[in-house]
Amino acid sequence: MEKKKLVVIGGVAAGMGAASKIRREKPDWEIVVFEMGQYTSYAACGLPYYIAGDVESFEELIVRNPEVFREKQNIDVRIFHQVTAIDTEGKQVKVKNLSTGEEFWESWDYLLIGTGASAIVPDVPGVDAAGVYALTNLQSGIDTRQGIEKLNPAKAVVVGAGYIGMEMAEALLLLKMDVTVVDMADQVMTTMDKDMTTMIGDYMKKEGIHLITGEKLAKIEKNSEGKVKAVVTDKQTLEADLVILGLGAKPNSEMAEKAGIELGVRGAIRVNRKMETSVPGVWAAGDCAESWHLVKKQQVYIPLGTVANKHSLVAGINISGGNMEFPGVLGTAITRFKELEISRTGLSEREAQESGIECVATTIESSTLSGYFPGTGKIKVKLVAEKNTRRIIGGQIVGFNGAAKRIDTIVAAITSGMTAQQIVDLDLSYAPPFSPVWDPVQVAARTLL
Amino acid sequence: MEKKKLVVIGGVAAGMGAASKIRREKPDWEIVVFEMGQYTSYAACGLPYYIAGDVESFEELIVRNPEVFREKQNIDVRIFHQVTAIDTEGKQVKVKNLSTGEEFWESWDYLLIGTGASAIVPDVPGVDAAGVYALTNLQSGIDTRQGIEKLNPAKAVVVGAGYIGMEMAEALLLLKMDVTVVDMADQVMTTMDKDMTTMIGDYMKKEGIHLITGEKLAKIEKNSEGKVKAVVTDKQTLEADLVILGLGAKPNSEMAEKAGIELGVRGAIRVNRKMETSVPGVWAAGDCAESWHLVKKQQVYIPLGTVANKHSLVAGINISGGNMEFPGVLGTAITRFKELEISRTGLSEREAQESGIECVATTIESSTLSGYFPGTGKIKVKLVAEKNTRRIIGGQIVGFNGAAKRIDTIVAAITSGMTAQQIVDLDLSYAPPFSPVWDPVQVAARTLL
Repeated sequence: MEKKKLVVIGGVAAGMGAASKIRREKPDWEIVVFEMGQYTSYAACGLPYYIAGDVESFEELIVRNPEVFREKQNIDVRIFHQVTAIDTEGKQVKVKNLSTGEEFWESWDYLLIGTGASAIVPDVPGVDAAGVYALTNLQSGIDTRQGIEKLNPAKAVVVGAGYIGMEMAEALLLLKMDVTVVDMADQVMTTMDKDMTTMIGDYMKKEGIHLITGEKLAKIEKNSEGKVKAVVTDKQTLEADLVILGLGAKPNSEMAEKAGIELGVRGAIRVNRKMETSVPGVWAAGDCAESWHLVKKQQVYIPLGTVANKHSLVAGINISGGNMEFPGVLGTAITRFKELEISRTGLSEREAQESGIECVATTIESSTLSGYFPGTGKIKVKLVAEKNTRRIIGGQIVGFNGAAKRIDTIVAAITSGMTAQQIVDLDLSYAPPFSPVWDPVQVAARTLL
Repeated sequence: MEKKKLVVIGGVAAGMGAASKIRREKPDWEIVVFEMGQYTSYAACGLPYYIAGDVESFEELIVRNPEVFREKQNIDVRIFHQVTAIDTEGKQVKVKNLSTGEEFWESWDYLLIGTGASAIVPDVPGVDAAGVYALTNLQSGIDTRQGIEKLNPAKAVVVGAGYIGMEMAEALLLLKMDVTVVDMADQVMTTMDKDMTTMIGDYMKKEGIHLITGEKLAKIEKNSEGKVKAVVTDKQTLEADLVILGLGAKPNSEMAEKAGIELGVRGAIRVNRKMETSVPGVWAAGDCAESWHLVKKQQVYIPLGTVANKHSLVAGINISGGNMEFPGVLGTAITRFKELEISRTGLSEREAQESGIECVATTIESSTLSGYFPGTGKIKVKLVAEKNTRRIIGGQIVGFNGAAKRIDTIVAAITSGMTAQQIVDLDLSYAPPFSPVWDPVQVAARTLL
């Protein structure tokens, strides 16, 4: 077997995952990873909990250091090295050593792009003020925590009530700040239907969040020292000495585009289900790339850690000469705000309608444990099904005390094409400390019938 | 539509569930339920928690009282009425009013037998001693709690380390007793494989239980007042002033057998998948009846609340003239011992071998949350798959902090015929407070490949 050379751009989840897989399959290949930052292979999803202090040091978020990759796996990871251009014809990348300023070209037989995503930073005046943070990578998390320690802010505004916004609002509340969350939509968590998110908004307010919906960020005001002073929406001015932007992520795909590699949904790098780009020999994985959606039957952009891990496995197997298709996503997501757990998968009712799918939906309220059991909590479950077949195509859960992980049952049901009746028929687990006799997911399925 | 008369024997989960379903379908039918005890429609699974005091009063366990059935649903529930004989030819049952002693015959067009199960009481000397309890129905739970309050026992011996034994051991520990658990098998929880139960036994010992395996109950010694003094095994004498028998349940099927109704597995009433017995017009549901096993493809005896509920739904629909087959069980069960959660579904490795299925199995250890997240706990997952196809046929989970309910993902996977690869491919939910990036169930599935 011929010895080949793989170059990987980006040393976080997708890049290092694929590199590791390929190393296992191809012990004699040359594998070089360029990472522009200082850190490799870390759990970005843990950043809000690191900022809150739930996770004490950022080192705990690092799964594996560059030295370990180098010594244990013979993967040549070069941190502080930024790839600045891709030459697909000449099969080489231009690299800048950020420590020395030196630039050089590195050749490859296979190229894997794992450049990740960046937080969306809106183009409004004052967004560059000191005290404005957006979570994008480990360094940004470290900066945010250090910034908070230095500024000791009393009033925080979180712009965007999605996953990151929600998790950061919890973190800042734990840090004893006065927290306002503002979103331009008329609800929090727009990946869910409004009938499910009302309970979330109510709980956030009860826990002390000033929640403002239906207002759009207009500008950020700074004081004479360049520090943030207020967030101005289209309707009011909100005092703030800390601002967190939670407006979602966009793929880092500009360099790929410049190299003539095709982009797809929302600017993500277009890939087939083998994770190969439009250019043979060039692969993409993780938050910079598209994913196949199992229900929508089309490519979507879902930048999440689980997806990045699966991307990297598929890309790694295919680059090594194997044959695997990306199995597809359902847009499954889970989070919590303090005690309230939130999860979703598949299509929301709104998404189903937008996709032109004739659907039925039901929302039920039940309890997470047997009603008489201490610690039982309220749970709401929404199921969305195709109208004719009653095949489940989406689910949403909001509730307390073990509510949200139940989404995995719905994930398995959607993936295997189950109908509402087939969910009712499942022999799910029951004991008073864990569930009512009919699991809330089954109660929802029964109501759908 | 002709007006018919339904008689139900037994007013707990299965009987009342079917009666309620039939009432909804047939508003004008006459429905009579005979219940020999005082209580209807209660959650027997909650009894250990009631005895522990987690659930304060037994009334909380009662879902619906006889009066409510009578007034709201026009179901003629007669408590303290024992059916003593079934006449299938004459389509009538012999009933004894336990309050008055009066006996009478009641006719029916349809008969539903929901007589439940009784705790197995071994035929050893001294088993009738005061202070020896076995949980069988709500009354037995009330008796046990009152007995404990009266006797104020210091030393308890639980015979049998299955679900009830485990739950009662926890309850007695909470009540500050010195608790010994003894089982004749060489492991606890024999519905699981020994490599999984070691962790349970170790934890029980750590929490203060004296755990004795591989010893068989020989007799119970009583003092001169007839009160229990000791439990004698085939190897030693264990002092005790309270004994709980947790030796499993046997179907209450003698009366059906005497009436010429066929019995099946382990003495349970033989039913087809419509829950009809060998005698046309006579149906059985709940802990007295068999259930279809989805993997074994044969009838089994699994007396559990969830199963009883599904039985009653199927029987109710069919008696009302509808058409539904019992969907089948996997023997899913879940429990906890203090903080340790335990669940299982499908076939254990031993059961698979006994069934002659060529299988592969794997046991992995992981964490319930992201490894760096506060409160993360150890979790062990075992998966059993058909050797050739890698189709999953069984799963077992032991662990802390949200471990056990993950069994439901495995239930859905087995039911829909998923392979280990298809479990790996599932887009399960992930966030640091809920799971590692690869859910432990997926880690086990990956190891199986």
